[in-house]
Amino acid sequence: MDVGFIGMGRMGRGMAARLAGAGHRVRAWNRSPEAAHGIPGVTPVASAAEAFSGDAAITMLADDAALEATLVAGGLLDAPGRPRLHLGMSTVSVALARQLAAVHERAGVRYVSAPVFGRPDAAAAGALHIVAAGPDAAVEAAAPLFDAMGARTWRFGEAPERANAVKLAGNFMIVAAVEAMGEGSALVEGHGVAAADFLDLMTSTIFAAPVYKNYGGAIAASRFEPPGFGLRLGAKDVRLVLQAAEAAGVPMPAASVLRDGLIEAIAHGDGEKDLAALSRVSARRSGRG
Amino acid sequence: MDVGFIGMGRMGRGMAARLAGAGHRVRAWNRSPEAAHGIPGVTPVASAAEAFSGDAAITMLADDAALEATLVAGGLLDAPGRPRLHLGMSTVSVALARQLAAVHERAGVRYVSAPVFGRPDAAAAGALHIVAAGPDAAVEAAAPLFDAMGARTWRFGEAPERANAVKLAGNFMIVAAVEAMGEGSALVEGHGVAAADFLDLMTSTIFAAPVYKNYGGAIAASRFEPPGFGLRLGAKDVRLVLQAAEAAGVPMPAASVLRDGLIEAIAHGDGEKDLAALSRVSARRSGRG
Amino acid sequence: MDVGFIGMGRMGRGMAARLAGAGHRVRAWNRSPEAAHGIPGVTPVASAAEAFSGDAAITMLADDAALEATLVAGGLLDAPGRPRLHLGMSTVSVALARQLAAVHERAGVRYVSAPVFGRPDAAAAGALHIVAAGPDAAVEAAAPLFDAMGARTWRFGEAPERANAVKLAGNFMIVAAVEAMGEGSALVEGHGVAAADFLDLMTSTIFAAPVYKNYGGAIAASRFEPPGFGLRLGAKDVRLVLQAAEAAGVPMPAASVLRDGLIEAIAHGDGEKDLAALSRVSARRSGRG
Amino acid sequence: MDVGFIGMGRMGRGMAARLAGAGHRVRAWNRSPEAAHGIPGVTPVASAAEAFSGDAAITMLADDAALEATLVAGGLLDAPGRPRLHLGMSTVSVALARQLAAVHERAGVRYVSAPVFGRPDAAAAGALHIVAAGPDAAVEAAAPLFDAMGARTWRFGEAPERANAVKLAGNFMIVAAVEAMGEGSALVEGHGVAAADFLDLMTSTIFAAPVYKNYGGAIAASRFEPPGFGLRLGAKDVRLVLQAAEAAGVPMPAASVLRDGLIEAIAHGDGEKDLAALSRVSARRSGRG
Repeated sequence: MDVGFIGMGRMGRGMAARLAGAGHRVRAWNRSPEAAHGIPGVTPVASAAEAFSGDAAITMLADDAALEATLVAGGLLDAPGRPRLHLGMSTVSVALARQLAAVHERAGVRYVSAPVFGRPDAAAAGALHIVAAGPDAAVEAAAPLFDAMGARTWRFGEAPERANAVKLAGNFMIVAAVEAMGEGSALVEGHGVAAADFLDLMTSTIFAAPVYKNYGGAIAASRFEPPGFGLRLGAKDVRLVLQAAEAAGVPMPAASVLRDGLIEAIAHGDGEKDLAALSRVSARRSGRG
Repeated sequence: MDVGFIGMGRMGRGMAARLAGAGHRVRAWNRSPEAAHGIPGVTPVASAAEAFSGDAAITMLADDAALEATLVAGGLLDAPGRPRLHLGMSTVSVALARQLAAVHERAGVRYVSAPVFGRPDAAAAGALHIVAAGPDAAVEAAAPLFDAMGARTWRFGEAPERANAVKLAGNFMIVAAVEAMGEGSALVEGHGVAAADFLDLMTSTIFAAPVYKNYGGAIAASRFEPPGFGLRLGAKDVRLVLQAAEAAGVPMPAASVLRDGLIEAIAHGDGEKDLAALSRVSARRSGRG
Repeated sequence: MDVGFIGMGRMGRGMAARLAGAGHRVRAWNRSPEAAHGIPGVTPVASAAEAFSGDAAITMLADDAALEATLVAGGLLDAPGRPRLHLGMSTVSVALARQLAAVHERAGVRYVSAPVFGRPDAAAAGALHIVAAGPDAAVEAAAPLFDAMGARTWRFGEAPERANAVKLAGNFMIVAAVEAMGEGSALVEGHGVAAADFLDLMTSTIFAAPVYKNYGGAIAASRFEPPGFGLRLGAKDVRLVLQAAEAAGVPMPAASVLRDGLIEAIAHGDGEKDLAALSRVSARRSGRG
Repeated sequence: MDVGFIGMGRMGRGMAARLAGAGHRVRAWNRSPEAAHGIPGVTPVASAAEAFSGDAAITMLADDAALEATLVAGGLLDAPGRPRLHLGMSTVSVALARQLAAVHERAGVRYVSAPVFGRPDAAAAGALHIVAAGPDAAVEAAAPLFDAMGARTWRFGEAPERANAVKLAGNFMIVAAVEAMGEGSALVEGHGVAAADFLDLMTSTIFAAPVYKNYGGAIAASRFEPPGFGLRLGAKDVRLVLQAAEAAGVPMPAASVLRDGLIEAIAHGDGEKDLAALSRVSARRSGRG
């Protein structure tokens, strides 16, 4: 397929490379142009409009503001060369996804929300888990692209924003796991046990899952840089979680705890560190660290 | 070895059978005597004192009160037949473990705290993870018994109560995982996604660990009976967590959220259900369920 | 002075009447025009632009959206008849107040943020407490108007948004007081004491302040309609509190508790009741009510 | 009446002096004997048993442990000279009050729980608010004593522990008010407003009640020593609140927030300061202070 890709961050570069490797023709654009160069098989283009065209366009941007600025304020949906299909793979709000669904319908562009679980290494390996929601025909049309980028596509019906709700709920669970390891570690340290020993036990046995191994290992080693998933991005996602929850009438007290911890972490200078640095809040509150 | 075992609940029965199967001579006592019968290779005895004797005694009781009533109030530590070694495998408070360590020292009985991770099926299969702390020589003396009961023994130093801190921190993480699944499910349901679909994705991918698969499956199926791990026991453990945390000067806001949720679950009649029923609190608060 | 007043809700009507009673010439506009009629000494006008003129204009609208729709989207700041001075008395976000300060500066209109504490009866009696921030000269120019509407004007410096931060922090304290009475009442009721008896003691002695007497009386009598201060408005204010807190890097765990309680109250149908109905959440969670 | 008074702390000394001033014969005992000397009209005695006698005995001790150690472990209830009536005025747990009610009944001593609201200056002035529960005849028999010590006696029925539930719920509300002022102050400070200015407004107007004026003034002035009501005592009371709530099946999320804040304050060395120092937690979490 002829694919345009907007957003060549660490995730986007890997995904675009996978598409090219699978034989698709890929044009790529990034706000800072240099990031769109040097990806095997991927052709940089000079404007977002040139990328938002072809059989399908994919957006993978940092947040609501970036997506709105590029897509909506940039007028891409009204451009004559607009694609037939748009896969929105950024982690954005449920509200924006709902709004985009309406805007795309008016523009005659089929819209699929398809945020992903997986980190840059999974993107580069085509091992993402893709959370897709949108009209069935559109999701099926996107299947060759999803197959090139992901280990599996998980479908959540025809309303695009449902994929975003699932993605946000998953990110909430990730941050909650980090908080649980942080509080648990503070507890055992308060009783003389090294956090690393405790986390080794937990993440080797009943919590032997990628999220726990990854963040647990970072907490155990106090290894917070470079960030795999930045703490400030985690705070942004929890904010979107709480907004989506309020809109749906869902109290989320654990999410509120995460929010407060993340704000505290940022206030103490850890916003650019890895999300695992959230554990330092628990340590500091108990007079350590 | 010649082993006395006190507490033939669902965990204790499996553990005692494993010991007998490994060639140890096992005498067993239970408050309701019938539970000590019918375990292959295990000899029921008529009193706790008869069981608290031999090369080693093991206690596996429901809570602090049961352990204190049997061991301390029952005067077992002063009985002439008392064993050389006592393995306290119940999930009890850090404070009680610390107190028991002192009491045993005075009585000349070596004490190892050795609570476990694993459910009755793991106990029956000898697949427990044993969290042991106590004097090195005592832990080493217990090794043949631990090997018969567990997949692995994790050592946490010479102060027995540290094992209890680790066990409680682990149980906190379990309840936190259930809460996270409950809140996440309420969020996606608020946006029209079936909780089961969301949980299937999560527990098959980045959260593919036993705790998530077990409780996530129960939540997805609304299968809360019979209880694997009873909600009221979870509430007891969170109470012990908060006490241990306060004693060590460790704030645990997520644990406080769990506490409130568990109290609410019990107030609504779910105390005897599985811990997974904690998820019903999130549903109810959002006007569903 | 020649004053235009936009927003004839229950607060605005009382305030406009006070201004007229003090000898000012008052023109008033309201989106639903009938609300601008029948106020002694106040002249209804047919458009917001007619009201946004004269020596000073006052806005007293429901929320950010209403103020933005009327003022910014309505283009009032560019209209040739725009006033020299604008007193923004609505309870709006810190972010909007900051933005309005910049927009007014460009338009050459002096802007004072001046939200108020007090309910409709206080507005009608000229007994409001006015929280004012803006350029000194502007605040002083507004003094005759503030004096007609309020018992006292409290000044918070030259940056308008500071008044909004103070107003929001105060509303947070109000909702926190209601939550405290709700949880305290649930506790005593759990031990057989009537909430009304408990609240009578508290609000007659160490908590004998207007907020407690007002909401405590409503809780004691289960009198949640008609709303004095609507629960949904309280939820909106707590949302603005949390946004302002996050922007300033301030964790507010008690505010998060309020947020969750208010969402739960709305999910159970109490959004249009008085804020005092937040207490029903505590009762429901404990299995009563 | 002939009264024995046990516990000559800052509260007890004022209360005993009031009783003597009203013409009662007062014998007083304190663990550190010097505190029982030098109170006008009050006769020190050498043992608790000598004080636990006469027409009525009053206990005013620091906590559950002190009361149990003196009364129960000390065997006072079995002493031949035991009084006809015991007024338990300490702030103790609901559970202990319930237990004491049963123990007194067996001993043939009438028991009234009568904790108080008010600080040492109110005790010295006879201006306490007395929260009394117990058999009607016993409360009426105590009336002359209560009248000498308090501004008013508030009755809560015949079950003594109800008075303790009310007292604890009231102390919860006090700590909640301090937390609200702390979070609110952190919010306004994050936007450039001095906490003192904000608190002056609040405590002069809609929160013009003793609790707010007292603690608000201390927060505004950063005056945390000497303690009026010690932070560690506040933490103890919140612990009793949470225990009483759990026993009654009442979730109290705001109380949990207080718990975590108080633990954090103690972990940072503020346990011996005034409860107002809880506000420093909010400041520290936001990167100030």
